[in-house]
Amino acid sequence: MKKGLMIVLSGPSGSGKGTVINALRERHPEIALSVSATTREPRPGEVEGVHYYYISKEEFERRINEGGMLEHNYYNSNYYGTPKSELERVTDNGHDIILEIDVNGAIQVKNIFPDAVAVMLIPPSASSLEARLRGRGTETEDVIIRRLEKAKEELRLLDKYDYLIINGDNKADECAADLEAIISAEHSRAARMTDEAERFFEE
Amino acid sequence: MKKGLMIVLSGPSGSGKGTVINALRERHPEIALSVSATTREPRPGEVEGVHYYYISKEEFERRINEGGMLEHNYYNSNYYGTPKSELERVTDNGHDIILEIDVNGAIQVKNIFPDAVAVMLIPPSASSLEARLRGRGTETEDVIIRRLEKAKEELRLLDKYDYLIINGDNKADECAADLEAIISAEHSRAARMTDEAERFFEE
Repeated sequence: MKKGLMIVLSGPSGSGKGTVINALRERHPEIALSVSATTREPRPGEVEGVHYYYISKEEFERRINEGGMLEHNYYNSNYYGTPKSELERVTDNGHDIILEIDVNGAIQVKNIFPDAVAVMLIPPSASSLEARLRGRGTETEDVIIRRLEKAKEELRLLDKYDYLIINGDNKADECAADLEAIISAEHSRAARMTDEAERFFEE
Repeated sequence: MKKGLMIVLSGPSGSGKGTVINALRERHPEIALSVSATTREPRPGEVEGVHYYYISKEEFERRINEGGMLEHNYYNSNYYGTPKSELERVTDNGHDIILEIDVNGAIQVKNIFPDAVAVMLIPPSASSLEARLRGRGTETEDVIIRRLEKAKEELRLLDKYDYLIINGDNKADECAADLEAIISAEHSRAARMTDEAERFFEE
């Protein structure tokens, strides 16, 4: 059976990754979403196995040592990572899976799976990102400044990515359509179509 | 202004290139279609400047020598080629353009413009191609055999192409949608989005 695609989606906090992924999965519920593991506490409303797998630091470190994490990061005094079992669950069955991970994680994944499709999602400008973060009214000045710096750092690594999508205000549906086109096109890549090409010669 | 994409579409006679391109351009009339030059006689119903530019052998050879042809081939005792002026007419204005050319031409174009997007369109199997060619009832046995051999030869050069689309019977609309997704995705390629990424840092 043909393997599914692994799509890595990165973008700064405030780029609208979650909204775009939801819009895409409304049209394509067959596309799986990888659930990350984390050592941070669940926030109100977050559900185990849906938003994250919540595990202890000891458990997380044990999994890293056993090679059970595809990628992981340490951020704000907590671990975040993708359990390998998440991927095998879907790509082996021919399903596509989306990993919502940051640039460090994306680069780790691309090193292990060069076939992974890496997409970066950003707001049109740093100032629009700043306005969105302030608009939430939940972030301290300190956090806003740190997130802006992180976004700029991440964007400097764009050459590690295959695609860039710009998410303007209220453009989540357009971005989801762009992502849908990318996934469709990647399925038509000549390098992934060698079986179909072989079949041409069979009688 | 951002340059348009150059999309090269190749596929054996009988693969349905023309039908797929028409279906695509019905949805996207803004996508231009490059008109080739040829030294062969117009067939009944063919229109100068629409199907081909019909020019003499002397004129064709003069243009080759002057560097006025992006690519050209000699096939069945006639020249076929893409005048460079066709491309500049559109890509410089930000429009995408499709070139319907054979594998030799496609490889020439990719050598000059590595950014060109090369797509191959084939029927699901050699036997379905044979059935289509026979179904026309207009080709001699000799021509059918030659076309089948040429199709197999061309498909062996798939690794020079970026994408492969399989055109099953009555699947022109699906193929047009695949091509539409490829064009959309290529516009989102990170390597083509460096201006937008730069803009992020501007205030």
